[in-house]
Amino acid sequence: MKTTLLKGCTILTMREGEQPFAGDILIEGERIAGVAPVIDREADEVIDARGMAAMPGLINAHNHAAMCLMRGFSDDLKLMDWLEKKMLPAEARMTEEDIYWGTLLAAAEMIRSGTTAFADMYVCMDAVGQAVLDSGMRASLTRGLVFLQDDGGKRMQEGIDLVEKWSGAGDGRITTMFGPHAPYTCPPEPLREVIALARERRVPIHIHLAETIEETVKLRDKYGQTPTEYLYQLGLFDHHHVLLAHAVHLTRRDIGYLRGMRGGVAHNPVSNLKLGCGIAPVTDLLAQGITVGLGTDGAGSATTLDMFAEIKAATWLQKLDYGDPTRLPAEQVLRMATIESAKLLGIDHEVGTLETGKKADLILIDLDKPHLQPVHNIASLIAYGAQGGDVDTVFVNGRMLMRRRELLTLSWEEIKKQAAKRAARLVQGL
Amino acid sequence: MKTTLLKGCTILTMREGEQPFAGDILIEGERIAGVAPVIDREADEVIDARGMAAMPGLINAHNHAAMCLMRGFSDDLKLMDWLEKKMLPAEARMTEEDIYWGTLLAAAEMIRSGTTAFADMYVCMDAVGQAVLDSGMRASLTRGLVFLQDDGGKRMQEGIDLVEKWSGAGDGRITTMFGPHAPYTCPPEPLREVIALARERRVPIHIHLAETIEETVKLRDKYGQTPTEYLYQLGLFDHHHVLLAHAVHLTRRDIGYLRGMRGGVAHNPVSNLKLGCGIAPVTDLLAQGITVGLGTDGAGSATTLDMFAEIKAATWLQKLDYGDPTRLPAEQVLRMATIESAKLLGIDHEVGTLETGKKADLILIDLDKPHLQPVHNIASLIAYGAQGGDVDTVFVNGRMLMRRRELLTLSWEEIKKQAAKRAARLVQGL
Repeated sequence: MKTTLLKGCTILTMREGEQPFAGDILIEGERIAGVAPVIDREADEVIDARGMAAMPGLINAHNHAAMCLMRGFSDDLKLMDWLEKKMLPAEARMTEEDIYWGTLLAAAEMIRSGTTAFADMYVCMDAVGQAVLDSGMRASLTRGLVFLQDDGGKRMQEGIDLVEKWSGAGDGRITTMFGPHAPYTCPPEPLREVIALARERRVPIHIHLAETIEETVKLRDKYGQTPTEYLYQLGLFDHHHVLLAHAVHLTRRDIGYLRGMRGGVAHNPVSNLKLGCGIAPVTDLLAQGITVGLGTDGAGSATTLDMFAEIKAATWLQKLDYGDPTRLPAEQVLRMATIESAKLLGIDHEVGTLETGKKADLILIDLDKPHLQPVHNIASLIAYGAQGGDVDTVFVNGRMLMRRRELLTLSWEEIKKQAAKRAARLVQGL
Repeated sequence: MKTTLLKGCTILTMREGEQPFAGDILIEGERIAGVAPVIDREADEVIDARGMAAMPGLINAHNHAAMCLMRGFSDDLKLMDWLEKKMLPAEARMTEEDIYWGTLLAAAEMIRSGTTAFADMYVCMDAVGQAVLDSGMRASLTRGLVFLQDDGGKRMQEGIDLVEKWSGAGDGRITTMFGPHAPYTCPPEPLREVIALARERRVPIHIHLAETIEETVKLRDKYGQTPTEYLYQLGLFDHHHVLLAHAVHLTRRDIGYLRGMRGGVAHNPVSNLKLGCGIAPVTDLLAQGITVGLGTDGAGSATTLDMFAEIKAATWLQKLDYGDPTRLPAEQVLRMATIESAKLLGIDHEVGTLETGKKADLILIDLDKPHLQPVHNIASLIAYGAQGGDVDTVFVNGRMLMRRRELLTLSWEEIKKQAAKRAARLVQGL
């Protein structure tokens, strides 16, 4: 098995309560074989990581990766104009090949900004799975299921096919979930069916919840319930693992319904801000013991997939919302982007912290830059100061995907060409 | 005179209503000599700018540059703990040499993130002025005046000395203002004096206003007025040029007092967020015809001086505050970071847009990156997608300060060493 030794970095293990320290990291095959102040042994490759911070790879807990093809295409519009006049018509034109290249574009961006794993909800999931395989990343894949037309059965079968075909693929890098899209797109009957199916097969569920005030109004008018009440009464929160994306518009009672749930909430602050949705009650959720991780949502709304932007936005919004700068301090928000997001993907036993025995999903951040000097407090500096472009080196499953900012598994020139060509076609005349 | 020709970039002139276009830019000596779809002529230097966006250099309208030495030193603390236990004791130890090197660190960071000019309020302004000269940047310098002790006369003299010594220095790159610190640190008598002095000498005034709710409470308890009413009644807004930093806590009546003022407001959204201060009513100010530009505030609160983060935060907060994603669209917020900030510094006749005859303060942004492809809408892409690290080349006053991310006027190795040494001393034991 190949061994790689990272020497002399500042290590943030992201284990709760553990302070950053200067040290070395040994990678053996797919796994971390040592994290210590000094590791003195031979290795096939030795990387001089002085002046770098090492931390677990960032985990993007909610994404629609292929939407990178629509990046910057429909900003500054009313929510319904954004969705109905721009995004949906462009998406309707997407072929399986478009989705493959769009996901590769997303993978290139994620690797270059330090993201090693992501939860994706989209369509044509074979194309997404293939892009994940080719990129070397880790992902939890979900076929989004909208039950507003009478093709629900076909969609459901696609969800089942994804789970059967892709679970455990890529040496275990790929896991899967069922993806009923959202309370407002899933009537009670098919939603009950998905939950029953997921229970039977022990498959986690990934669903949008309470992203907009319009959703709350719709559910109230239709069912006399909040979106959260609606899911609660259908028994969703009894499921063994549920990943809730957004959870912006929650009442105090809604938060009570979520208490004790397994899985948790993917907070997407940049998308919520850009679409004017509101501020998710993150610190209130945390106070109730609910796991909260971070995601970007698709680049169609968020523009980029830079998790460092989400880290900043998440802590800023809690500080703002409570007028209290002590809310969501640096270490906690960095944990949200790593180990807490890993919990949401159900992979925290394998990744999310730097410790011996876990899979080697980790990044090196180059601190030798004016905006990252001097170093008073490394966690604070990374949370509030670092940006995607500061990531120097990325490992996933022990394999190097980027070194000195060069992508090692993907051809950027080819992706750029394909993305430009396909993106132009998708939006033509819209 | 040396001529430089930038070929084949996508040009955002930032002139109101002008669409981006593909073209060339000619620089002759200190000035822009042409901006057009094709400029076909010889030049001493030709830069291949294909795949790049060209726009005016970003202008940081409120900064305390030397505070970069305290970057990341005291985050996630209550406002008064941040100020009284950390910032003020560290600042009290600063020597003139610390301020020189701290300002150079800030200059290195600003150049590397596309900022070409800044408004600075600090102390030991000879050191700051020297750092501006050495870096090649443009700046408006202000000696901050706090009138809570009986050394007001001495401070005032330092403000006058700054204006007399530094106005017009560095081939006109340096301008100056008077800097009464804030309503809560300036009683009526000395504030009246500064205003009278500024009027007599026709010097602009740079002052903090209504940053925190604590300030509003203080002024109410002391004078029965809001901070804005306090300044209004002292006649400040009749002055020919006033730069107001923050303006977060304004009543509707306060906004009325600002209507018709000359100068305007420097909005610092990242600092306001990180300290939990609140959201400045930017779009309401704009609706009243008040000029609003962007600043970072010091890195002691904001962590970085990356204006691209301010651009994003500014538009996000307006969208959030009104639940309306159409607020502060991309082009408008990019104008805030360029020509509107230039107005606040009183230098909009010379910089802030790309047009023939203006000083050549401009940047090239490298779009050949996964997070900046494909290009559907260049203004949107830059506003919501770009980060400081994407800036490739920087010109100020016709001089290249950075090329392919290499600093040309500053020694990063020396600045890094000095910053580390001095920063450690400043915070020792705090």
